[in-house]
Amino acid sequence: MLLHLQTWQEVERYLETSRGIIIPIGSTEQHGPTGLIGTDAICAEVIAKGVGEATGALVAPTLNIGMALHHLAFPGSISLRPTTLIAVIQDFITSLASSGFQQFFFINGHGGNIATLKAAFPQIYAHLADLKFSNADQVRCQVANWFMCREVYELAKQLYGEEEGSHATPSEVAVTQYVYPEAIKEAFLEKEVASGHPIYSAADFRRHYPDGRMGSNPALATPEHGKQLYEVAVKTLSSSYLKFIGE
Amino acid sequence: MLLHLQTWQEVERYLETSRGIIIPIGSTEQHGPTGLIGTDAICAEVIAKGVGEATGALVAPTLNIGMALHHLAFPGSISLRPTTLIAVIQDFITSLASSGFQQFFFINGHGGNIATLKAAFPQIYAHLADLKFSNADQVRCQVANWFMCREVYELAKQLYGEEEGSHATPSEVAVTQYVYPEAIKEAFLEKEVASGHPIYSAADFRRHYPDGRMGSNPALATPEHGKQLYEVAVKTLSSSYLKFIGE
Amino acid sequence: MLLHLQTWQEVERYLETSRGIIIPIGSTEQHGPTGLIGTDAICAEVIAKGVGEATGALVAPTLNIGMALHHLAFPGSISLRPTTLIAVIQDFITSLASSGFQQFFFINGHGGNIATLKAAFPQIYAHLADLKFSNADQVRCQVANWFMCREVYELAKQLYGEEEGSHATPSEVAVTQYVYPEAIKEAFLEKEVASGHPIYSAADFRRHYPDGRMGSNPALATPEHGKQLYEVAVKTLSSSYLKFIGE
Amino acid sequence: MLLHLQTWQEVERYLETSRGIIIPIGSTEQHGPTGLIGTDAICAEVIAKGVGEATGALVAPTLNIGMALHHLAFPGSISLRPTTLIAVIQDFITSLASSGFQQFFFINGHGGNIATLKAAFPQIYAHLADLKFSNADQVRCQVANWFMCREVYELAKQLYGEEEGSHATPSEVAVTQYVYPEAIKEAFLEKEVASGHPIYSAADFRRHYPDGRMGSNPALATPEHGKQLYEVAVKTLSSSYLKFIGE
Amino acid sequence: MLLHLQTWQEVERYLETSRGIIIPIGSTEQHGPTGLIGTDAICAEVIAKGVGEATGALVAPTLNIGMALHHLAFPGSISLRPTTLIAVIQDFITSLASSGFQQFFFINGHGGNIATLKAAFPQIYAHLADLKFSNADQVRCQVANWFMCREVYELAKQLYGEEEGSHATPSEVAVTQYVYPEAIKEAFLEKEVASGHPIYSAADFRRHYPDGRMGSNPALATPEHGKQLYEVAVKTLSSSYLKFIGE
Amino acid sequence: MLLHLQTWQEVERYLETSRGIIIPIGSTEQHGPTGLIGTDAICAEVIAKGVGEATGALVAPTLNIGMALHHLAFPGSISLRPTTLIAVIQDFITSLASSGFQQFFFINGHGGNIATLKAAFPQIYAHLADLKFSNADQVRCQVANWFMCREVYELAKQLYGEEEGSHATPSEVAVTQYVYPEAIKEAFLEKEVASGHPIYSAADFRRHYPDGRMGSNPALATPEHGKQLYEVAVKTLSSSYLKFIGE
Repeated sequence: MLLHLQTWQEVERYLETSRGIIIPIGSTEQHGPTGLIGTDAICAEVIAKGVGEATGALVAPTLNIGMALHHLAFPGSISLRPTTLIAVIQDFITSLASSGFQQFFFINGHGGNIATLKAAFPQIYAHLADLKFSNADQVRCQVANWFMCREVYELAKQLYGEEEGSHATPSEVAVTQYVYPEAIKEAFLEKEVASGHPIYSAADFRRHYPDGRMGSNPALATPEHGKQLYEVAVKTLSSSYLKFIGE
Repeated sequence: MLLHLQTWQEVERYLETSRGIIIPIGSTEQHGPTGLIGTDAICAEVIAKGVGEATGALVAPTLNIGMALHHLAFPGSISLRPTTLIAVIQDFITSLASSGFQQFFFINGHGGNIATLKAAFPQIYAHLADLKFSNADQVRCQVANWFMCREVYELAKQLYGEEEGSHATPSEVAVTQYVYPEAIKEAFLEKEVASGHPIYSAADFRRHYPDGRMGSNPALATPEHGKQLYEVAVKTLSSSYLKFIGE
Repeated sequence: MLLHLQTWQEVERYLETSRGIIIPIGSTEQHGPTGLIGTDAICAEVIAKGVGEATGALVAPTLNIGMALHHLAFPGSISLRPTTLIAVIQDFITSLASSGFQQFFFINGHGGNIATLKAAFPQIYAHLADLKFSNADQVRCQVANWFMCREVYELAKQLYGEEEGSHATPSEVAVTQYVYPEAIKEAFLEKEVASGHPIYSAADFRRHYPDGRMGSNPALATPEHGKQLYEVAVKTLSSSYLKFIGE
Repeated sequence: MLLHLQTWQEVERYLETSRGIIIPIGSTEQHGPTGLIGTDAICAEVIAKGVGEATGALVAPTLNIGMALHHLAFPGSISLRPTTLIAVIQDFITSLASSGFQQFFFINGHGGNIATLKAAFPQIYAHLADLKFSNADQVRCQVANWFMCREVYELAKQLYGEEEGSHATPSEVAVTQYVYPEAIKEAFLEKEVASGHPIYSAADFRRHYPDGRMGSNPALATPEHGKQLYEVAVKTLSSSYLKFIGE
Repeated sequence: MLLHLQTWQEVERYLETSRGIIIPIGSTEQHGPTGLIGTDAICAEVIAKGVGEATGALVAPTLNIGMALHHLAFPGSISLRPTTLIAVIQDFITSLASSGFQQFFFINGHGGNIATLKAAFPQIYAHLADLKFSNADQVRCQVANWFMCREVYELAKQLYGEEEGSHATPSEVAVTQYVYPEAIKEAFLEKEVASGHPIYSAADFRRHYPDGRMGSNPALATPEHGKQLYEVAVKTLSSSYLKFIGE
Repeated sequence: MLLHLQTWQEVERYLETSRGIIIPIGSTEQHGPTGLIGTDAICAEVIAKGVGEATGALVAPTLNIGMALHHLAFPGSISLRPTTLIAVIQDFITSLASSGFQQFFFINGHGGNIATLKAAFPQIYAHLADLKFSNADQVRCQVANWFMCREVYELAKQLYGEEEGSHATPSEVAVTQYVYPEAIKEAFLEKEVASGHPIYSAADFRRHYPDGRMGSNPALATPEHGKQLYEVAVKTLSSSYLKFIGE
C-alpha cells in the first residue's frame, strides 16, 4: 500500500488496524562511472514497496535526497546538511504522529544517512513530548539498512567476495539493473580501485577515490543478481518490520 | 533525462552544453475523498518528465513533501514547515550550483509551496554570494506552477467550469488518473461543497472544508482529460523552460 | 489608534470590543535616484494610520525593515533574510496572540515581503497550535498590499500609464512627497530605463537596473497625486480590514 | 540626516566622508498605567534624531520591537526572542557593512535589549570575518543607553529622587510627553509600588509588579522635564558618538 | 556536593530539601604569555565547589567552553558562538527543570559570557512556559561573576592596584596558581601593556593587545594571593547563593 | 599535555610539531542506583589524559554534557539536543582549526553521543570549506569509543560475562571507582534487571528500565578492575591516535 496512491479516508481506515508505516530513504549521489546517481533511492524504494506488499504495511513517499556531503565533488550529487535532514525527519514524523501513526520503520539505502537518522530520533521523541501529543511516548523509530542485513550481506559476499567493496557496490548496482534494465551503463572502469580510506571532506574523498568507487567492481553486477538481492532483502526486512510493530 | 538514471560522468558531459535543470516539487496531502494523497507530486513529476523529454533538459528527483501544514488535520498528510523547506531548497541548489548548474526551473504541483519557494530564492542567491561561488551571480531560479499556466487553466475551465474549484480539482485528479489508471478511486461525494474561505490553520481548514475539497467536483475527472491536460502542460512549460534558460 | 501611543490598560479595554490589529510593514531600500530609502515603510505607515483612523482599529508599530536582499548592491539598503523575517513575524504575532489578538492585518508597502509573509503565516498557525493557545485556531493573518489594490492600481495607471513601472514608481514616490514634502528630491534620471528582467541576485539586479528603477519615471510624481493615492488606498483597505475582521 | 529620507546616491556621498551610523533601538511594551507602550522606541528615536542633527551623522530607521519577554503578561506588549533579535541585528549590520559602513552606534531606550545587543556583536564580527568582507576587522559596534548616561541619570535623580524607580520611570515618561504632548495619559496610580525584585519570567514579573511599574512614580513627569532630559541626552550622546567614530 | 559524583537517587533525595543548583561556567581562551588557557573555567570550578561545600548546594559539571570569539586569533582558544551558548544553556536548564530544579545560580569566570547568559535567561523562561512545565514560573536564573564581587574586587585592587588590568589579571592567575601550583608559568612579559581599547573583532583584539593581556601584570600573582582571593570569593558567593534561593 | 594548563604560546609551539588534538566527550546522566551521574565524562576524561601522556598529544577540556535525552526521566540527568551538540562540536572544531589544528580525535564515553558526533563531522567539513579555511580539506575527525575497543570489550566480558550489560555497566563503574574511590556508592540493586529493549523516548526508557540499568550488574565493579580497564583503554587508544594522526 503506497501512501501516495491512497485517499485520506483510506488512511483513516488503515489506522484502525495498524499504527505502523514504512519510510524509504535514499540519496542522490555519484555511484562511480557505471552506477546511477539515484541508486540509493531506487533500491530503498523498490525494497520498501516489496516489504509493503508482503506485510500489508503502508509505504510513505521516498525521501530521495539524503546526507551525501562527501560526494559533492562529483557532478550531479545533491545533499542535505545533517541539520536540514534532522528537520525534515522531524517534520515528517510529527505530521504522521498527529494522525495517529506510532511506528516508523525507515528502509535506508545509504550508509551516509545512518548517523543523522539516529541523531534525529531522540530529538523527535523529545519534540513530541514537548508538544504533549497523547501518543508521544508510544512513538518508536527504527532504521533498517537493506544492504547491512546479514542475509543480504552474505549473498553479496558469495556473489562478489572482496569486489563488493563499500560504495558503488555490485550489489546495489545489480538491484538498480533489476529495476531499470533500460538504464544499465557501460563505462571504462580502472582495474585498480582505492579502498580503506575513511570518509572525511568532499575534496578529500575525491582525492582518494577519483572515480567515485570505494573498493568495488560494479562490472560484476547483473539484473538477475539484483532480483536475488531484492528478494532476500524483502524477505528479511518484512520479518524485521513485523517484529518491530509487534514489540 | 532523469538525473537519478544518469552517472556522474554523464552529468559532467551534460554540463558542457547546458547549465539548466528541472526540479519537480509536489506535496503529500489529502485531496478529498477520491483524490490521491500523492496528487501534487505525481502531477509535477510526470509533467517534469515530459518537459525533460521535450527539451532535452535534465530532471532532478521529485521533492515529494512540500508545505501543507493546513492539511494536517486529515490523516496521511505530511508537511515540512516553511523554514525546513527553505533549508531543503537551499541545500539542494547549493549542491547543484557547486557542480556548475545555474538555471533552476521548479515545476510545482502545489499552491501551498509557492510562497515558500519564492521566499527561499533570495536567501539562496545571498547564500551563494556569501560562499563566493564563482557563478553565484549567474544562478537563477524560477517556479512554474503547471496548474496556473494560462493554457492549462483555460482547458480546465472549458472541461469543468466552476466545478474545477481550487483544491482536489478535477483537473489534477484527471492527471493522476492518466498516470495511475489502476488507482482511480470511488467514494461518496457530498453534492454541496464549501468554497471561498481563505486558508488559515489546519483546524480552521478542516472545520470549513470537512471532506477536504475546496469548491471542486473531482467526479468529473477522466483519464482522457488527464492526458489532454498533461499534454498542454508539457507543451506550455517546455516553452517556458527554453525561454528561461535562454534569457 | 496607534499602539505605541496607548497604555496597556487602554489595550486591555480595546480587546473587549475587537480582536483585530493592523501591522504596517515596509522596507528600507534604494528607490532609484529620487526615491527615498524609506519609501515602502513611509507609505505603509501612513496608509495604516489612515485605515486605523477610519475604522477605529489599533495600529501596531511599523516593521520598517523587510526582505530586500536584491537591493543590497545599492548603498543604504537594509534587508532581513527571509528566515529572519519569518522569525520576527512569528514572535510579533505570538506576543499579541497571547494578549488575545486574533486577526492580524498586514498593510504592506513592498513587493519583496509578500512571499515571506505568506510563508510565515502557516508556520505561525502551527506554532500557536503547538503552544496550545486557547485561541490558536481563531488566529487569522492577511497581507494587503496597498499598491496592488485594484482602485490604487487603476489610479496609478491613469496618472502615469506605462511610466508607472514596477520599482521606484511615481505612485509610491508621490505618497512619500505627500507625507514629506520637505524631502522631495531632484536628481538626474536617464530617459531610458530598463524593465522586464526578473529579479534574481543583488549583483544581477544592479547589472540590469543600474540606477535602481524598474521601468518607472518617478519624475511624474507630485504631492497632490500622493494625496489622491493615499485617500484611495485608505478607503479601499478600510473596507478590506472590516471585511477581514467580520468574517 | 535620516536614512529613510535619503536616496541611495546621497548615502553613497555620505560614505565618502563618514563610515558611521546611528541606530535607534527601543521596545514595544507596557509602561505602567500612564506610560505609553511605545515609550522606549519613542525616546530612542527622538534622541537619535537629535544626535544626528548635532553631529551630521546618518540615523537609521528605529528598531521599535526589542527584547521584552518579561512584559508579555500585559496586553499590547510585543517581544522578539533574544535569538531572533540577534538575527535581526546581524542582518541589519551585514547589509550596511556591505555598503561600507563601519561604526554602528546603537542608541538604546530599553534595558532589556542590552544583554542581547552585547551578545550579538561578537557573533556579527565573526560573521563578517567568515564572509571575508574587506572591512570586516574595521567594523565596530557600541550600545549607548540614553537613560544610563551619567548626566541624564543625575538629572533624573535631581528631579525625582527615589521615585525615579527602574521601569515606567518619570524620566522616560517625561520624554514621551515632550514628544507627544497630545498623548499624556491620566490613570489611577497606586501609592505603593513594588520595587527591588529581580526580573524572571513574565508571569513572575506581573505577580510582583501588578500594574507594570517598578518602583517609579510617573505622575511626576512633565513635558518640560522631558525637554531637559532630551537635551542632556542629546548633548552627552553626541560627544559619545563623535568619540566613538574618532577612535 | 558535586552532581557528577552523585547517583540519580541521591539527586532525588536532594530535591526533597532544595531546588537550587550551582553551575560553574568558564571559558577556554588565551590569558597572556603566563596565564593558563583554562583560567576562567578553573577559577569558576574551584570557587563553585567551595560554595557548594559551604552551603550544601549541588554543583553541576563545569561549562568549560564559553563565549570567547574575540580571543580566537590566539592559538588554543575555543569559543561557542553566542547563539550556540544560548542553546546549550537552554538545554541544560530545561533538563534540570524537568527534574524539579528551580533556582539556577551560575558562578561565572569570564566577562565575555555575561551578556550571552543574560540574553539566554528570558528566552529560557519563555521556553519553559511554552512547554507548560508545572514549575515554569518558579524558575529563576542568576549569574554571579566571582571577579566582580565587591569584596574580591577590593582585595585585587589592594594587592595589585592599577596592574590588575582587565584580562589575564594577576588575581585570576593567582587563583589558578593556588589550584595548580605545578602549572605556574614563566615567560617574558613586555613592560608596556596596552589597555583601554574596547573589544571588537578577534583581529582587532590581537592588533591592540598583541600578547593577549589587557592592562595587567600577572607577574604579581602568587599562590598565596590565590588562596586569599578564593576564600573571599567563596564567602561572598555563598551568601549570594543563600540569599538567591531564599528569595 | 592538557590544553587548559597551557599558555597560548605553548600551544603555538605544539603546533609546530603536531596538528592533532584529543577531545574527551562524556555525558551527565543517571547510571543506575550505584553509578555516578558523571560516569561517562569521568571515564572519557581520565582515559584521554592517559592517552595524552602516552603519546604527547594535547588534550582539550572535556565536553561533559552530551546527548542523553533518553535519560531525562531520571533526576539529575542533563542533555543537549542533537542539533545543539552539533553546533557545539562545530564551534569547537572551527575555533581550533582556525589555529591550525587538523586532526580531531574524540575519546567518547557515551553510546548516545556516537550518532550525533558522526552526523556533525560532515557538516563541519562542509562548513570549513564554506569558510575557505586554507586547511579545510586536511581536517579529519574521528570518534573512538573507549568501551567499544576490542581489547576493553574482551576484558569486560572476561570479568563480568553477561552481567556487563549495556548501561551502568560494571566496567564503566569500575573505572569511576578507580578515579574516585571516595565516591563508591552502595545501594539496593534488584536482582532482576531488564535488558534488550531498544531505546526510544525518555518515558519509554524509564518504563522499561525502572532503576536505570540496562542488563548490568554494577555490584561486580572494583577499583582494581577499573585500573585494568583504564590501562587497556589507554594502551589501545594511544595506538589508535598515533595511527590516526599518521594517516
